[in-house]
Amino acid sequence: MLRTHTCGDLNISHLGQIVTLCGWVQKSRDLGGATFIDVRDRYGLTQLVFNTDTDATLREISRELGREFVIKVTGKVIERSNKNLKMASGEIEIAVSDIEILNAAKIPPFLIEDDTDGGEELRAKYRYLDLRRAPIRNNLVMRHKLGQEVRKYLDELNFIEVETPVLIKSTPEGARDFVVPSRMNPGEFYALPQSPQTFKQLLMVSGFDRYFQIVKCFRDEDLRADRQPEFTQIDCEMSFITQEDILNTFEGLARHLFKTVKGIELNDFPRMQYADAMRLYGSDKPDVRFGMEFVELNDIAKGKGFGVFDNAELVVGINAKGSAEYTRKQLDELTEWLKRPQIGATGLIYLRHNADGSLKSSVDKFYNEEELKKWSAAFSTQPGDLVLVLAGQTDKVRKQMNELRLEMGGRLGLRDKNTFAPLWVLDFPLLEWDEDTERYHAMHHPFTSPKPEDIKLLETNPGAVRANAYDMVINGIEVGGGSIRIHNRDLQSLMFKHLGFSPEEAQKQFGFLMDAFEFGAPPHGGLALGFDRLCSIFAGLDSIRDVIAFPKNNSGRDVMIDSPSTIADTQLNELKIKTTV
Amino acid sequence: MLRTHTCGDLNISHLGQIVTLCGWVQKSRDLGGATFIDVRDRYGLTQLVFNTDTDATLREISRELGREFVIKVTGKVIERSNKNLKMASGEIEIAVSDIEILNAAKIPPFLIEDDTDGGEELRAKYRYLDLRRAPIRNNLVMRHKLGQEVRKYLDELNFIEVETPVLIKSTPEGARDFVVPSRMNPGEFYALPQSPQTFKQLLMVSGFDRYFQIVKCFRDEDLRADRQPEFTQIDCEMSFITQEDILNTFEGLARHLFKTVKGIELNDFPRMQYADAMRLYGSDKPDVRFGMEFVELNDIAKGKGFGVFDNAELVVGINAKGSAEYTRKQLDELTEWLKRPQIGATGLIYLRHNADGSLKSSVDKFYNEEELKKWSAAFSTQPGDLVLVLAGQTDKVRKQMNELRLEMGGRLGLRDKNTFAPLWVLDFPLLEWDEDTERYHAMHHPFTSPKPEDIKLLETNPGAVRANAYDMVINGIEVGGGSIRIHNRDLQSLMFKHLGFSPEEAQKQFGFLMDAFEFGAPPHGGLALGFDRLCSIFAGLDSIRDVIAFPKNNSGRDVMIDSPSTIADTQLNELKIKTTV
Repeated sequence: MLRTHTCGDLNISHLGQIVTLCGWVQKSRDLGGATFIDVRDRYGLTQLVFNTDTDATLREISRELGREFVIKVTGKVIERSNKNLKMASGEIEIAVSDIEILNAAKIPPFLIEDDTDGGEELRAKYRYLDLRRAPIRNNLVMRHKLGQEVRKYLDELNFIEVETPVLIKSTPEGARDFVVPSRMNPGEFYALPQSPQTFKQLLMVSGFDRYFQIVKCFRDEDLRADRQPEFTQIDCEMSFITQEDILNTFEGLARHLFKTVKGIELNDFPRMQYADAMRLYGSDKPDVRFGMEFVELNDIAKGKGFGVFDNAELVVGINAKGSAEYTRKQLDELTEWLKRPQIGATGLIYLRHNADGSLKSSVDKFYNEEELKKWSAAFSTQPGDLVLVLAGQTDKVRKQMNELRLEMGGRLGLRDKNTFAPLWVLDFPLLEWDEDTERYHAMHHPFTSPKPEDIKLLETNPGAVRANAYDMVINGIEVGGGSIRIHNRDLQSLMFKHLGFSPEEAQKQFGFLMDAFEFGAPPHGGLALGFDRLCSIFAGLDSIRDVIAFPKNNSGRDVMIDSPSTIADTQLNELKIKTTV
Repeated sequence: MLRTHTCGDLNISHLGQIVTLCGWVQKSRDLGGATFIDVRDRYGLTQLVFNTDTDATLREISRELGREFVIKVTGKVIERSNKNLKMASGEIEIAVSDIEILNAAKIPPFLIEDDTDGGEELRAKYRYLDLRRAPIRNNLVMRHKLGQEVRKYLDELNFIEVETPVLIKSTPEGARDFVVPSRMNPGEFYALPQSPQTFKQLLMVSGFDRYFQIVKCFRDEDLRADRQPEFTQIDCEMSFITQEDILNTFEGLARHLFKTVKGIELNDFPRMQYADAMRLYGSDKPDVRFGMEFVELNDIAKGKGFGVFDNAELVVGINAKGSAEYTRKQLDELTEWLKRPQIGATGLIYLRHNADGSLKSSVDKFYNEEELKKWSAAFSTQPGDLVLVLAGQTDKVRKQMNELRLEMGGRLGLRDKNTFAPLWVLDFPLLEWDEDTERYHAMHHPFTSPKPEDIKLLETNPGAVRANAYDMVINGIEVGGGSIRIHNRDLQSLMFKHLGFSPEEAQKQFGFLMDAFEFGAPPHGGLALGFDRLCSIFAGLDSIRDVIAFPKNNSGRDVMIDSPSTIADTQLNELKIKTTV
């Protein structure tokens, strides 16, 4: 090694030792007779002191050093006169006797410090410099630890990690595939996997019993903060189990990760029916760090002559506790925020429970005090509370109210990043109606098993069929989900039929899996956790971008390496493809 | 869980317990009043006994059961009268009181046993059934263990695993890329990485210090037994190190794996110069499980009037000890084998050291006994030995002799799969001449640093420049390799120049890396180990195919899922490409 220690190793116990460190110049202060330099590596910072009076060579070299120069220094560990107890190495410094510049550095385009002055684009272009900053480096170190702990936990439970192929087959179900032209099979394409779903099921058919993989998956979808064209899943599957076993196993995994990586002991995860989640939170991924559950007002608010409510399918509200001080202006702003096309509400009704105990609503014309007391009782309001009410078509108004609830939770400081509120959402619908294609789609995927008692509804009321499907939600983020799978050819065929596949299409696309079910497929199920999202929750970030070393931007570009890019005509010719741009 | 135990759990200590097992019917024997069934899962086999006299339902169900049916049975653990001490569960059986058929199975297309009757194609099509066989399952379980131990070892040394992108940029250097059309950037393509080389170097520039990743890589090359279009690397990089540190760290890794996974303590790895490996073994990946080193005979064999030798650049032989009994016919066959176009030798000369001490060669006409004694001395022959000699152009004859040496080593039983002979091959040439393109190519890759003392030769004798590059070789297989990298822009530019890049091309393709070198790049180096090959060596296999769950065939096809395949015109249109087949 070029060094004897790292910049995070040394402390008062090393006094008097001659050591060699390598690292980057963080900053330099020339105090006349002495120059102080902080040298940085992945492990920490150590202060160097150069007695520039006595050694002309040292003086000369130390004055050449700019920020981010890479240096190798040798010297004696001495006690600092001016200790910095915030730094691990803050009680000592190195009296440098020898220095070598291993590599010079141009002035970086932005400050390599926790708070940088670099804009997003600049930092993306010089990602390798942005990665030097401690907050981002710490995210990636934590990601590594999470990966190690996932593997340790699952290995101890006899799961084995099996790599499934990346070059697979394109299927029309689900999101858009990335495809790869095959040179050896001209005119044909591989697809990159959106998940290893069929392969992990085949591994169960093979008797592998307990499988996992931390694996890259790919979706060619339009991007946003928590989506990347390539992302990483913790993918798992088990045989001879019930849903209960899966929930316990992976709740155990999440608890293990919080304990070992963040030192947090989580309680048992609450479980909530999908239907209840929608009714109480308007979301299948409720943020249960705070209450503010929906209260449905149809019974007490309808039939009093207020047309907006009378004509609505659902009248629903929340109690934003302690917000009665909202001014008219603030309420107007909130209403405008709700009316934006992203949310699409038509208006906002409020009931204020004033500090003096009186009730005041924006619809006093239709509701007298007695009526408003019923409202107040429904929300258990206390003086100082503010009830916010929306009305409209059930699905839409629930979505709008979900947004409003999250917004108010945020404003009220109820969504603390250091509080973790996990839960399981259970019994998702099997199918969901797609307006665009005018047919049912699999809500989870086509391999999810319906609840046996609901199979008969497939013919009569497909939307009411519940699936053996479950999601793990933490702080309002869907961390992962899964299902008990179909392991029987006939049931799988029935599913494909209801998803609009002809028998020929089903056989062409998924024949290998249905064939496999005929050779002794065990009952099985599993789940996949979004590793990027899990890391971002652990890091307290809203976006997954800074838990990924080299992410792409919203156009799917890596601006650092400038990819994608055009390729040579010889490559296109070999692949027997042409671009039509 | 549907079961209380696995089929590998139960032994004499469980006598009297009521247990429930799930698994596959391995085989069934109906002995009149009792039916015996072996039930199998990933963990083992357990014998079930059905008293079919007393329970009509059990009798009925047990007779329905065919091979590979999936069953759930409950019964009491009893002592076997007829013990099988080869099986972990061989002292007990389960007296079944309850059975449920979880899934029926059609008759499998081949026997699910260690020795199967299925041909390669059939097994590939039904890979999920082939994976049920213990030899293949054991390979994948071992692969999992190797992966876990790699991570454990590297984590303890402060390496962190960082995921690098799969959708990157196509570069003209090296093998052919797989490419992925970008829908969001029409006319542009991503490439799949042949290795994460540039990203891991950027991570060093970022100060990550010690990186690893077990990662899928991709090469669109024509395939053979030890190549797949997608393969897995253990990819590593370190900063502030010398070559010696890298060799020690990864020799340590290999020794750790052999110890923890195979229980084998390896000695220190010998180190051999590339030039010596070529001279003594005719290969940069010598199989040193056995000696049989090359002996060069130019001094003693030339100038005696034998034109073949006199006109040859190199006369070289090996001593196939104990092979003097080879008949004329066997030697003729060996000569024919050497003359096949795959090897391309022009002929084979031999010297037999007979049991009676006499020497007999196929060129007695040119070499008298005294001369042959010199040959004998050069090879230290003893009675019973057979010296085999080839002559020709140095590089070609070394390659031919390498083939002959390996062949003779195999015939003499010197290449035992349970013996492991690792070594490091050091000081590879930086560049190699490519006949097709008539220019120098990087032997390792363009980022490998030349030995500082050889840089001056770049202008005058590029082929003689040695690199700080090294390969790990085990049993004649290149398990991995790496190098100390260039970390300086000027030297990197010089390399690109010698590889035939214009400055503009170099900047366009690798500008991001050369730019990064200007912002404080530390000295660094690393290596990559072929994980598939490592697994195949551990498993004692010649091919990597059976250490991969779902491999592709020699045309790059997955015959199980039937991929690659044509895709829909709508997909092509969205991607703005057309096939030209």
